[in-house]
Amino acid sequence: MGLIVQKFGGTSVKDRNRIFNVARIVANTRKAGNDVVVVVSAQGDTTDDLIAKAAEISSNPSDREMDMLLSTGEQISIALLTMALQELGISAISLTGWQAGFATDRSYTKARIKRINTERLESELARNRVVVVAGFQGLNRSDDITTLGRGGSDTSAVALAAALHADRCQIFTDVEGVYTADPRKLPKATKLKEITFDEMLELASLGAQVLNNRSVELAKKYGVELEVISSLNPVPGTIVKEETKVEGMLIKGVAKDENVAVISIMEVPDVPGMSFKVFSLLAQRNINVDIILQSSGRDNSKDLIFTVPLTEAQTALSVLNENKNRFGGGDIKVSTDYAKVSIVGAGMQSHSGVASSMFEALFNQGINIHMISTSEIKISVIIDKTDADRAVAAIHDAFIH
Amino acid sequence: MGLIVQKFGGTSVKDRNRIFNVARIVANTRKAGNDVVVVVSAQGDTTDDLIAKAAEISSNPSDREMDMLLSTGEQISIALLTMALQELGISAISLTGWQAGFATDRSYTKARIKRINTERLESELARNRVVVVAGFQGLNRSDDITTLGRGGSDTSAVALAAALHADRCQIFTDVEGVYTADPRKLPKATKLKEITFDEMLELASLGAQVLNNRSVELAKKYGVELEVISSLNPVPGTIVKEETKVEGMLIKGVAKDENVAVISIMEVPDVPGMSFKVFSLLAQRNINVDIILQSSGRDNSKDLIFTVPLTEAQTALSVLNENKNRFGGGDIKVSTDYAKVSIVGAGMQSHSGVASSMFEALFNQGINIHMISTSEIKISVIIDKTDADRAVAAIHDAFIH
Repeated sequence: MGLIVQKFGGTSVKDRNRIFNVARIVANTRKAGNDVVVVVSAQGDTTDDLIAKAAEISSNPSDREMDMLLSTGEQISIALLTMALQELGISAISLTGWQAGFATDRSYTKARIKRINTERLESELARNRVVVVAGFQGLNRSDDITTLGRGGSDTSAVALAAALHADRCQIFTDVEGVYTADPRKLPKATKLKEITFDEMLELASLGAQVLNNRSVELAKKYGVELEVISSLNPVPGTIVKEETKVEGMLIKGVAKDENVAVISIMEVPDVPGMSFKVFSLLAQRNINVDIILQSSGRDNSKDLIFTVPLTEAQTALSVLNENKNRFGGGDIKVSTDYAKVSIVGAGMQSHSGVASSMFEALFNQGINIHMISTSEIKISVIIDKTDADRAVAAIHDAFIH
Repeated sequence: MGLIVQKFGGTSVKDRNRIFNVARIVANTRKAGNDVVVVVSAQGDTTDDLIAKAAEISSNPSDREMDMLLSTGEQISIALLTMALQELGISAISLTGWQAGFATDRSYTKARIKRINTERLESELARNRVVVVAGFQGLNRSDDITTLGRGGSDTSAVALAAALHADRCQIFTDVEGVYTADPRKLPKATKLKEITFDEMLELASLGAQVLNNRSVELAKKYGVELEVISSLNPVPGTIVKEETKVEGMLIKGVAKDENVAVISIMEVPDVPGMSFKVFSLLAQRNINVDIILQSSGRDNSKDLIFTVPLTEAQTALSVLNENKNRFGGGDIKVSTDYAKVSIVGAGMQSHSGVASSMFEALFNQGINIHMISTSEIKISVIIDKTDADRAVAAIHDAFIH
């Protein structure tokens, strides 16, 4: 008994059958005595189809008009899902982003929510209606439609849950929850009952791809309890919240990330300011640098080795080569045959032996470690891509099974 | 040099090429020194596709949600056309119905425009932008999206032209203007330079299908000069306005309408109130009765013969049969093998011989007339459907060529 925000992605509403599947989940939640606000994305390929239409017109369409175009995708979904709910006898109403009171900043295609005016929403809830809200969109101060960019519907749902002080925000996906490793790759991976926001953030950034990071950060900031849950199989999912019960398991998950390239700049002069010069160049291009390793080279020089997303490796390489004279380095090499494998778990730093157990597991498999990075709740290693799946299985065996 | 409202239907923006064709027309109008407001419909089959999606969910979807769904069609069009204009170097911005200030009443799917708040529109025009407005839609007092129903985009354009005191409202279609007869059926039909609102109303209601009647009525009410013009062939179209120049042609057009059924109620008692009882029954079901003919029958009875749209003939027949005892009539028959052929021209009533010339033309072709109806600017006859095209040609020959 409470107020629950339920978010469904594009795959969950891609056709008539999936829409009715979602409508039944919502109807059951409502019949159990809860108030329900539903946030939906555009159907299946709708957004891609709309982008293709725009691409036929212009290779560089204006951001404002793209938002005008793309926001129709969610508007179609909310109308259809509301019709399905009504067909099941549930009183329901659809609201676009602007009708639901989403006020954003001016940045078209990647707007940020500034506040949600929940007046209309609360009046519809007071009329005992399920409210179906278009995710991913809002209105800026000029009364122009904006979209929130990638992962936008998750963010819409969490922001709405925060604004309405909802008891829970359920993110429905095609997986049953958060797993100790990718269950498609490692069948013995197990579903976690609970995980903290920080652990979830580390896992998401490691390529677990269950929840969008921005939405987890927002949930952490406003203390919104999340549940990652399957829209196809009605079993409890994984709860993401501030504190988790002690589950007797230190390591929450093992994640693999293949979107990684290693860049090596050899023989950088060993004088102050060189690292700053290199990394500020990359920051200007919005290229995120992850693990950094600085080794002493020969003759008063050092080697600077770091990882960037594979998708941005070419841009990084061009920028560095163009500006080579500014940091006076030697050869710049990019290696793309690597993967990052990480273990995540709050408090691992205070438990001795976690890192060495991980390295032992890899050693037993004859897997060579190229780089290492550690944080409060994470240990990552860069290894050969071909070793990655074997590494995940070995580490999983060592810590979880 | 002035303010021109240009309206383009769904066929005119159905794909990339047609969108750029429209963009070039708008760009040329702009470059000629005019301010331009463009009103567009949904692309080609978009509305039908959306209706099909709704039909998969519900056989009777809520009107509010249908409007939420269908209004996305025009929103897609305005974004794409605006991108095309920008691609041609024209400063442009798209506005949805609610952004353009269309305030409507509450009747979803067939809303009526109550007023247009032109503040946003005028500020965009003041910034030298072409404004591309979604036709067919508005916002009601609850901030819910409404649609205007059939012919809605024409009505949007005319209402906008009236609110902005535009110099002209151009309705672009796939024909070059208003013809003296249907040019697909009668190749020698000629395009009219000018026609009055009243003549246009008669022609539209007679099945000429060039302009939606509601939009012509609105144009007449607010004195908005219309031009019916081709989006494919850049030649002057037909001007529709209050007074036309004397063109030396009394008869403006010959029209055929096959959406007609003749209902005969035989042996209605010849006492007061019988006609009222019959036609009030039909009015309650929103069935429009057109031509009425009352003949004296035998033995203190009369026969009541009238036409209704073919599409409503079965409903009319059911209503009349269910309530037969209220007007005590005999047999009720429906004949569907008829067509209505009409000539339209202001002031024909004051010219003697128009009717007899029309009847003579039909007689010369051996065409039998079943019913006759006349008004200030129109003479209609009901004849066999198989004679209709021949009748149009003969009448056209008699009056126009």
